[in-house]
Amino acid sequence: MQNIDFKHLAQRYQTPLYVYDFPKIQENFLAFKEAFAGRKSLICYALKANSNLSLIAHLAQMGAGADCVSFGEVRRALLAGIPKYKIIFSGVGKRDDEIEGALREDILFLNVESFGELKRIEKIAQALNLQARISVRVNPNIDAKTHPYISTGMAKNKFGVEIEEAKEMYLYIKHSNALEAVGIHFHIGSQICDLSPFIEASNKIAKLLTSLLALGLSIKFFDVGGGLGVCYDDENPIALYDYAQGILASLGGLEPTIICEPGRRIVAESGYFLTRVIGEKQNSHKRFVIVDGAMNDFLRPSLYEAYHRSTLLDSKSLDSSLCDIVGPICESGDYLAKDVLLPSTQEGDLIVFEGAGAYGYSMSSNYNTRTKPAEVALTENGIKLIRGRESLEDLFAKELECYESNKA
Amino acid sequence: MQNIDFKHLAQRYQTPLYVYDFPKIQENFLAFKEAFAGRKSLICYALKANSNLSLIAHLAQMGAGADCVSFGEVRRALLAGIPKYKIIFSGVGKRDDEIEGALREDILFLNVESFGELKRIEKIAQALNLQARISVRVNPNIDAKTHPYISTGMAKNKFGVEIEEAKEMYLYIKHSNALEAVGIHFHIGSQICDLSPFIEASNKIAKLLTSLLALGLSIKFFDVGGGLGVCYDDENPIALYDYAQGILASLGGLEPTIICEPGRRIVAESGYFLTRVIGEKQNSHKRFVIVDGAMNDFLRPSLYEAYHRSTLLDSKSLDSSLCDIVGPICESGDYLAKDVLLPSTQEGDLIVFEGAGAYGYSMSSNYNTRTKPAEVALTENGIKLIRGRESLEDLFAKELECYESNKA
Repeated sequence: MQNIDFKHLAQRYQTPLYVYDFPKIQENFLAFKEAFAGRKSLICYALKANSNLSLIAHLAQMGAGADCVSFGEVRRALLAGIPKYKIIFSGVGKRDDEIEGALREDILFLNVESFGELKRIEKIAQALNLQARISVRVNPNIDAKTHPYISTGMAKNKFGVEIEEAKEMYLYIKHSNALEAVGIHFHIGSQICDLSPFIEASNKIAKLLTSLLALGLSIKFFDVGGGLGVCYDDENPIALYDYAQGILASLGGLEPTIICEPGRRIVAESGYFLTRVIGEKQNSHKRFVIVDGAMNDFLRPSLYEAYHRSTLLDSKSLDSSLCDIVGPICESGDYLAKDVLLPSTQEGDLIVFEGAGAYGYSMSSNYNTRTKPAEVALTENGIKLIRGRESLEDLFAKELECYESNKA
Repeated sequence: MQNIDFKHLAQRYQTPLYVYDFPKIQENFLAFKEAFAGRKSLICYALKANSNLSLIAHLAQMGAGADCVSFGEVRRALLAGIPKYKIIFSGVGKRDDEIEGALREDILFLNVESFGELKRIEKIAQALNLQARISVRVNPNIDAKTHPYISTGMAKNKFGVEIEEAKEMYLYIKHSNALEAVGIHFHIGSQICDLSPFIEASNKIAKLLTSLLALGLSIKFFDVGGGLGVCYDDENPIALYDYAQGILASLGGLEPTIICEPGRRIVAESGYFLTRVIGEKQNSHKRFVIVDGAMNDFLRPSLYEAYHRSTLLDSKSLDSSLCDIVGPICESGDYLAKDVLLPSTQEGDLIVFEGAGAYGYSMSSNYNTRTKPAEVALTENGIKLIRGRESLEDLFAKELECYESNKA
């Protein structure tokens, strides 16, 4: 962060603004490759964390694959140059047209979330006269001890199937001409900083893999999902070496290709959300610093009560006091930080939020008729605008079309 | 709901889909006019609840004004045919360019949220050689007993100024050539079903108004905000007659024009969110009904843990069991209903959510690269598409532009 000239960026691109450090993204991606060095592995970046086309293309150039959760994301991966044989389609609610699209594009495989979905895929593959490559998402029923909204590997969650059902599904696949079992998958949650649930899950699924191989299934991919936590505040993220060693140990003598699906771990700490102070407000109870960024731009604080480190740039004051940093949206839920220490601010000052590269822009909305921020990338070849700021004209276009034609 | 042919709508416009009942919106709007009949009143619809241009135009034709919380919303109001003298601009974080825009458009007045903002407005008005019409938003420090994210009238909230500060601001306005005090404003929160906090607040602010008039200020508008609750589940909404009588009683002999800013109360129960079943999933713990609508389309259940009545249409089964209705998005926070009774469903069945007219589409996002739903209006002249479904091409356009030009 020290090396980034936020003041220049704010002048050139205005605020609020998302800023991504591309060399840092590269470093984070290569750390995954390194951790699994010596083994066949494919790092499929989870697009849902940040699906900007230029950012995906940056990862594609380093050999990344893509973990997609909608056909829209598959289209993004292909547009950004990720080869089809490195693209996976996961997700609990794939529509028929999305399944058909993915099969036609001949991607690596589909992670399947239920028996019903498996049969739908079979039917669609039959109609297309294709064989669908399948991996079953197994729910290991393990508590990942993270925010309930992002814990996904317990039986009470909507994701995956239980081990017994998974076995039945693999036997069904084995006897279907339209299906081919190529992988096995688990994903237990997000922002996890404790290694043990990963290892516990990996042990369970490796055991299942062994029994499936014994049944004559030729499963080549061991897809361990993502979910590795990052440091937003004082978390102690898992070392990738330990993570990789733990997973490899759980596999014993088996040698499948490891697929890993990191999203947050690659982009969160590489991204910043830059805002400008509109004014301060002090009442008898509280100090508020009002900035031009809001919950529509950056929902994590409001939705998950997430903490993101905030810094007032070029502060002249040495005295800090507690405040809430809030946006212009008309509800009390619109805040970016609660009870944080900040020096006194002036109109026009810049405040930067860290850890904003993941689930920032990708969750943004137009609430309160606010246009979405611009996104810029800091690259070795200079600063690049990778998505222009939305205008009100952009926002109104689709409605105006209907409005004018209904009036006429 | 009984009269709406959702099956036809789903076939014609696909799902997920927002459906608005325009005659019902009219009825709700006219109920406000009726409640304040015999007094000078202006009903300023709060655009943030649902800002579709055709919906605003529908209200404009009945004489509605507009409560706007961004300059984007002011632009919407004007585009939809609301006259400038019926438009108010509120909000805790107005940018300088937004204030300038509003002053140039010569709207009715600005609701001002802090002394700092007042001085910024004065400076901008001076530079434009205009006089800015002002109303001060007073925070009455009253607990509206609603969800903490939508309670706004307590001193710990970011909104408005305390009574003593408001007095100082009005005196400041009185002595400024660039400012004119025309109104006084309060707004204590949202989805309130108890009349007493409204009356308590109205009494406090009416008392303040009396003392300001005694100081020689000529305040013409008494802006009581919005916040009237609706029935999502078993709430008992406040009768508008009681509400109006309570406010008028608090004014005693004073006769200002009443401004009321309802949003939810006008549109919430007039709107439906229509989804289609993708499949069911049952594990040892839970039954899940997976639909094609998700938290990106309709955030209220996830963000506020809001309940919305859900109905399976054309159900053949008589037996119901508990389930969660969930969307395709890859997090456990993506649900539309929790632990609700529903008959067993088949792929393709339709499920409709009620009370979705307010804070539905207006909070929608593109999370997981999902395109935003279409919106249709049921009118006396038939069904009208009022916003087309977004396509992936729409979604990629602004990024693709940058991506291609950076590659070149």
